[in-house]
Amino acid sequence: MNIGILGTGIVGQTIGSKLVQLGNDVMLGSRIANNEKAVEWKKQNGSRASHGTFAQAAGHGNILFNCTAGTASLDALNRTGKENLNGKILIDVANPLDFSNGMPPALSICNTSSLGEQIQKTFPEIKVVKALNTMNCKLMVNPALLKDEHDVFVCGNDKEAKSEVISILKEWFGWKSVIDLGDITAARGMEMILPLWLRLMGVLQTTNFNFKIVK
Amino acid sequence: MNIGILGTGIVGQTIGSKLVQLGNDVMLGSRIANNEKAVEWKKQNGSRASHGTFAQAAGHGNILFNCTAGTASLDALNRTGKENLNGKILIDVANPLDFSNGMPPALSICNTSSLGEQIQKTFPEIKVVKALNTMNCKLMVNPALLKDEHDVFVCGNDKEAKSEVISILKEWFGWKSVIDLGDITAARGMEMILPLWLRLMGVLQTTNFNFKIVK
Repeated sequence: MNIGILGTGIVGQTIGSKLVQLGNDVMLGSRIANNEKAVEWKKQNGSRASHGTFAQAAGHGNILFNCTAGTASLDALNRTGKENLNGKILIDVANPLDFSNGMPPALSICNTSSLGEQIQKTFPEIKVVKALNTMNCKLMVNPALLKDEHDVFVCGNDKEAKSEVISILKEWFGWKSVIDLGDITAARGMEMILPLWLRLMGVLQTTNFNFKIVK
Repeated sequence: MNIGILGTGIVGQTIGSKLVQLGNDVMLGSRIANNEKAVEWKKQNGSRASHGTFAQAAGHGNILFNCTAGTASLDALNRTGKENLNGKILIDVANPLDFSNGMPPALSICNTSSLGEQIQKTFPEIKVVKALNTMNCKLMVNPALLKDEHDVFVCGNDKEAKSEVISILKEWFGWKSVIDLGDITAARGMEMILPLWLRLMGVLQTTNFNFKIVK
């Protein structure tokens, strides 16, 4: 499948590499076509890997991942252009972490809205599915790194899109437990878990952990 | 031990009953001395149970629990009076859930502060320990209701107070896994998990679940 990834940081690179290994043609998108990190990533990932602008990466993809910094996501999507986005599934992995007042970051959007909702509202023709924003990127694509079972949350307004994303999570990335939280307003709760996640990272001195809902 | 509980709702009653069963003398406090729910609770809990005003309950207790509605907690503590509070441990179980705009509730304080922090800031002579705010009250006092292990978080500025609260959680309530998140600013993350908790309650159609950190 052709997949477009918006963002060339560690999250976009990690998801991109996994998708290439699975046999997909993946383009990493950035503000500029020849982003240094994307050029390096392509070298390491062979002929199925490519890079371009946000618009080129979105145009390339049948499915898109938003792996930009959350505070820059709306700007990145605006640069991408509706003609490259409309009708497509966008898996929104981003968190609206605002580091402008130092550590710990606050959320730039929260409580009465969320980044996932703002993207869906601004681009009503995209099928936004929030997913994978609650664990580190190595776990995103390889949940088996933790011995015990743990959970990934998803939410979104389009049921078919969500169903396709759940298949990707299970069949491609190996997730056994996916919890569907309903429509995109659940992105609020998914993003608001970040302050606890960051605190746990400090206390546990690792990013190699995740949430499990015990029933 | 003498214990004062601020709040006469289901959370205060459940914690109070458990503490009475453990042999403690427990007073439930409310705005008025003869709150109807507290009178009924006393009838069911025998001679070690009593009720009074916030000031009387806090004056009675060597250790205090804040089980008031989060949006009313600061007002309740102001009514209680510093002379009844200062120097004592306050286990803050409350969440600042604002239902004024309907369901789902928003948090009345979050992101750049928390209820736990605001209580500690307003009453610097109280030893505030945030705990037990992330699960339903039956689980708070009986975590064994879930077969698999799950976690309770604590945070607070006073190490000795936190250590005493951790002992209460383990020895009285039966918690096996307590995660100390550090100082009271961690209350932000602990309270911001509520929107996800509420969403999970809707999806799972039960309150009988909790978070486990898988490492």
